[in-house]
Amino acid sequence: MSRWQPNAKGRLEQAALNLYQERGYEQTTVTEIAERAGLTERTFFRYFADKREVLFGGQENLLKTAVSAIETAPDTATPIEIIIAALEAVVPMFQERQEIARQRQSVIAANPGLQEREMLKLATLVSAMTNALRRRAVTDPEASLVANTGAIVFKTAYARWVGEPDAPDLSILIRASFDQLKRIISG
Amino acid sequence: MSRWQPNAKGRLEQAALNLYQERGYEQTTVTEIAERAGLTERTFFRYFADKREVLFGGQENLLKTAVSAIETAPDTATPIEIIIAALEAVVPMFQERQEIARQRQSVIAANPGLQEREMLKLATLVSAMTNALRRRAVTDPEASLVANTGAIVFKTAYARWVGEPDAPDLSILIRASFDQLKRIISG
Repeated sequence: MSRWQPNAKGRLEQAALNLYQERGYEQTTVTEIAERAGLTERTFFRYFADKREVLFGGQENLLKTAVSAIETAPDTATPIEIIIAALEAVVPMFQERQEIARQRQSVIAANPGLQEREMLKLATLVSAMTNALRRRAVTDPEASLVANTGAIVFKTAYARWVGEPDAPDLSILIRASFDQLKRIISG
Repeated sequence: MSRWQPNAKGRLEQAALNLYQERGYEQTTVTEIAERAGLTERTFFRYFADKREVLFGGQENLLKTAVSAIETAPDTATPIEIIIAALEAVVPMFQERQEIARQRQSVIAANPGLQEREMLKLATLVSAMTNALRRRAVTDPEASLVANTGAIVFKTAYARWVGEPDAPDLSILIRASFDQLKRIISG
């Protein structure tokens, strides 16, 4: 076997998602994932710390991208425009991965522990975005209201994107969720 | 010692909060709480399943009150009016307990495990409110957007109510948070 495996990370991820769906997340071992991908456990651990990281490994990067978009938004942008820019900045991280996102969602939906993890990761993102807004001199409670609004809009759009069979692009759904929230709130 | 203890529950709660603040939540035992309150452990367990329930025991009641307000709101109310009515319905459960709420908040802020628990309890409330709205024929994603908006408004108002020295009434802060969110979103 050659040392370099083309797209080893992607193959491991796909093998893991298939097994989590077939057998359940708890019942799947790293050994089985590596075997299914035709790779070694050692290769698995080159890309992922454990089997949970297959599902949540992208979150750190997501957080950095969102925070960096807040930091670099133009001075003329309002807080809500800044947060929408942050959501739009993370869209490309998902766009090509809709099928993976759908499988991941069905694994998480089947496991309360993973649902908790997902919620806490979202809370961490909200808190990082709130802090980034504060550093741009957005005061409290506005910073927190804006960051939380961004999270709702994203969560709603994302749920439609993974849940609806012929869902439009994630960026279109983000815009639609935001517009809907605006209409709801103005009554 | 007489069998009936006036306000035993309140005394146990206050003793627990004092000890959680003095020694830390993890370091405090039920034995110490009962002793500080001048009551027995047996009396403690008549009111609370464990030391965590001193902090989270009220949540079940809160959820029922919010859901019942959604169910009984007038047919003419819009979804956002229904959710505001639900928030207003829970206010009396807090109003007389501001000092307790402040102490509770400082205990939770000092303990990441308790912060997670608090977040997950809020998520449970959001999900119960979303379901109650659906039963009133509010469709998705509107039901979820509205319930989440209610949670943000409440969380923001509550944070000010426990955090600001001369905070106005919780109901005034709820109204203020909602108005602020409205302004933010309309840009």
